Amino acid sequence: MMSNRKRFGKVVELREEKIQEYKDLHASSNAGVRHLLSKYNIHNYTIYLHQLDDGKYYLFSHFEYSGEDFEKDMELLSEEPENVAWWKLTDPCQVPIKNRQTGEQWARMEEVYHND
Amino acid sequence: MMSNRKRFGKVVELREEKIQEYKDLHASSNAGVRHLLSKYNIHNYTIYLHQLDDGKYYLFSHFEYSGEDFEKDMELLSEEPENVAWWKLTDPCQVPIKNRQTGEQWARMEEVYHND
Repeated sequence: MMSNRKRFGKVVELREEKIQEYKDLHASSNAGVRHLLSKYNIHNYTIYLHQLDDGKYYLFSHFEYSGEDFEKDMELLSEEPENVAWWKLTDPCQVPIKNRQTGEQWARMEEVYHND
Repeated sequence: MMSNRKRFGKVVELREEKIQEYKDLHASSNAGVRHLLSKYNIHNYTIYLHQLDDGKYYLFSHFEYSGEDFEKDMELLSEEPENVAWWKLTDPCQVPIKNRQTGEQWARMEEVYHND
């Protein structure tokens, strides 16, 4: 990662009954919207899954943004027909957590440490 | 990040009363053990903090490893006197979650997606 990139960490609950479907959608064999991530300057996008003590499953993502206008790029991404179709598949797998900003599907987390 | 790096995502609970202490320890103005991370091939180490629906606070980390023997490097890191001292400060801030492997302070999560 380049230190001039902005970093983002996000979290959302994953429905237990949707785990396999979500994994299949995100398998390396599935192109999904990977080309759109690159198009809109999103890099090193990694999603992790873990079950926490409340028994629920959570997805945690880390990605980096190399463009000049994140909000604009995310707006354009959200309007891409392929992305609209993608979110129609992935959103029903997830349950947004309560502690999030208005409009967020994935709640953005606070960065408390970084070392290149 | 280089695609030949191994990625790691981990999670641990952060005690609410230790949030400020933990942030202070990890402030960019505090050298901490940053030089040891570099020495043992740990890069792009980012820690995020968020409160989940159970009311507890969690730390989520993402980092990348560029060396040849991760277990060996982590063993050497764990024996560094500065690192031993560091963990004596940070471990009491944390509560390991139940869903973890033996010996883990931070529970390693499963990677379900990656796009460079």
